[in-house]
Amino acid sequence: TRTIRLAVVAGDGIGPEVVAEGLKVLDTVLAGSGVTVERTDFDLGAQRWHRTGETLTDEDLAAIREHDAILLGAIGDPSVPSGVLERGLLLKLRFALDHYVNLRPSRLYPGVPTPLADPGEVDFVVVREGTEGPYVGNGGAIRVGTPHEVANEVSVNTAFGVERVVRDAFARAQARPRKKLTLVHKHNVLVHAGHLWRRTVETVGAEYPEVSVDYAHVDAATIYMVTDPSRFDVIVTDNLFGDILTDLAAAITGGIGLAASGNVNPERTTPSMFEPVHGSAPDIAGQAKADPTATVLSVSLMLEHLGLTEEARRVSDAVAADIAERDGTPRSTGAVGDALAARVAAGARVSG
Amino acid sequence: TRTIRLAVVAGDGIGPEVVAEGLKVLDTVLAGSGVTVERTDFDLGAQRWHRTGETLTDEDLAAIREHDAILLGAIGDPSVPSGVLERGLLLKLRFALDHYVNLRPSRLYPGVPTPLADPGEVDFVVVREGTEGPYVGNGGAIRVGTPHEVANEVSVNTAFGVERVVRDAFARAQARPRKKLTLVHKHNVLVHAGHLWRRTVETVGAEYPEVSVDYAHVDAATIYMVTDPSRFDVIVTDNLFGDILTDLAAAITGGIGLAASGNVNPERTTPSMFEPVHGSAPDIAGQAKADPTATVLSVSLMLEHLGLTEEARRVSDAVAADIAERDGTPRSTGAVGDALAARVAAGARVSG
Ligand SMILES: CC(C)[C@H](C(=O)O)[C@@H](O)C(=O)O
Ligand SMILES: CC(C)[C@H](C(=O)O)[C@@H](O)C(=O)O
Repeated sequence: TRTIRLAVVAGDGIGPEVVAEGLKVLDTVLAGSGVTVERTDFDLGAQRWHRTGETLTDEDLAAIREHDAILLGAIGDPSVPSGVLERGLLLKLRFALDHYVNLRPSRLYPGVPTPLADPGEVDFVVVREGTEGPYVGNGGAIRVGTPHEVANEVSVNTAFGVERVVRDAFARAQARPRKKLTLVHKHNVLVHAGHLWRRTVETVGAEYPEVSVDYAHVDAATIYMVTDPSRFDVIVTDNLFGDILTDLAAAITGGIGLAASGNVNPERTTPSMFEPVHGSAPDIAGQAKADPTATVLSVSLMLEHLGLTEEARRVSDAVAADIAERDGTPRSTGAVGDALAARVAAGARVSG
Repeated sequence: TRTIRLAVVAGDGIGPEVVAEGLKVLDTVLAGSGVTVERTDFDLGAQRWHRTGETLTDEDLAAIREHDAILLGAIGDPSVPSGVLERGLLLKLRFALDHYVNLRPSRLYPGVPTPLADPGEVDFVVVREGTEGPYVGNGGAIRVGTPHEVANEVSVNTAFGVERVVRDAFARAQARPRKKLTLVHKHNVLVHAGHLWRRTVETVGAEYPEVSVDYAHVDAATIYMVTDPSRFDVIVTDNLFGDILTDLAAAITGGIGLAASGNVNPERTTPSMFEPVHGSAPDIAGQAKADPTATVLSVSLMLEHLGLTEEARRVSDAVAADIAERDGTPRSTGAVGDALAARVAAGARVSG
């Protein structure tokens, strides 16, 4: 038997609702497997901030570190000034735990509604850098609120940081049938950062002769995303470009209700964190309307990261099967979770 | 009679081909109007750089300044290192001539093929800031090529620069039937720049009580662009976000073959520059395959900027009429230009 120490950050808005379903499916897939989950709930997010002024304390972080993985729902509420929870909690977790691979698979499941008239087969993964770029928080402003204000934001890119994520992306490309990697950047304008990314892809690529490499400027990449998304297999890109591209990728593959993500530390020196790409959606919170599928798929990514490959597959198979039978009839958050859990359980019976 | 001194930068790849058609239509619409064009061709781009090592000299710039407007085809060639012509020529023109309003209208003409299954009515304009943000070239790198390389890119945003473009965007929104302005940024992460943009929109917005204002993070904006583009009327955004969004906007409204742009100095202290959004497309250069429509629409924007409103409308009407009858049969660059010029001429006869 094996015990997984799971830190749960349900967070704000619909976060707790979708996390409950993710945990339901997790419990189901692990039932009888000999793997047990030891779960710690962390009270983090808007309410805690309003109550205490704290976003993520050193104690919180130390406690979270004692876990094997983190499942996160969503962070953010309009009652909290913009940036406070994003920078003080969500990004702080990604940075403090060195989640340098922000993994965002996009797959268009058969039957899923997409805004594209003729999407073709879509199945790619974005490897978004998670600890550098314009996300580092190295900005500042002077003369704020005066006509002479200057506000700067600095994108920091290091050989160390770029190489490790590019290496991860190549390894993923190598393991996929199409073995293709696309670097997305804007090296004709952001020449310093762009050339570092480019050189790194060239250098690391030499170690992966079977992987074919191409490049797209981020602006052109958004065009391909809607005109020819099947051209993509593995995309490697910077933190901000990855943020933008993965929301667009989610939109063309059925919406952020289906988009899962992992904030991964491949060295496993810290717990990796799995979260749906969507936000806290306060407008529909508490109404059992949120689609928990992205959270359930994030659980599948988590199982995979934890080496529970068979269980990961059972969860993603359950999602694929459920999606194939969706006809647009609205179901409650809990009903979707129940349906997925039931399929996971049934799948186990069939294959067992 | 009035004389327009027009600087023509045909540039690289398909640039000269599409510019020829733009000028053909321009000549046609001005025929008999009493307005004459005094045209100067500037030899700028890849060939000049290969020959002389120059991108844009002080003399070039001084000569260009002596004009009322600039028509630009496309700049860039794979034989020139990335960034050299973009930064040394195209962006240098935008910056030196203080083109702080990068105007990019997106309209889905009836009958135009779009990758979206159900786009609805699309008719918006992106007011992209053109002289600040991550485009300022304030980056740098140390220890280049070593494992300790650090490459930074700095986004500079000033109250002066943000306010003037926001003001322009509000004025445009006020003049449009829907009177709606959407700020696109990422203020939950880029808090310093983002908050400057936000505060500026609030302050200037108080002077435009009839304009309704909303906000979207850039990642969410890409989602709306493919799921609900008709929500947009005027978008105001930073240089880089505008670059990304306008390519995506072009993609959903028929492709960059149709996307026009103006690099505008609203104070008219310098010549504004009009250019198709597409690049030099070296793969199809010299084959008479390029669609000159985006250049012709850029000519329409130029006419409008020069106060020749009626002529501007005649050109855009000709484009709309031509597009409505396109059936996918390929036409040469010249054939499209001829057809548009013929329509412009015919339109003049009808309305005259
Ligand atoms: C909430 C925000 C800070 C976050 C990001 O920009 O990374 C989100 O958009 C995401 O993609 O996970
Ligand atoms: C060529 C490049 C420098 C330019 C930009 O990034 O502005 C282009 O993409 C555009 O949108 O006009």
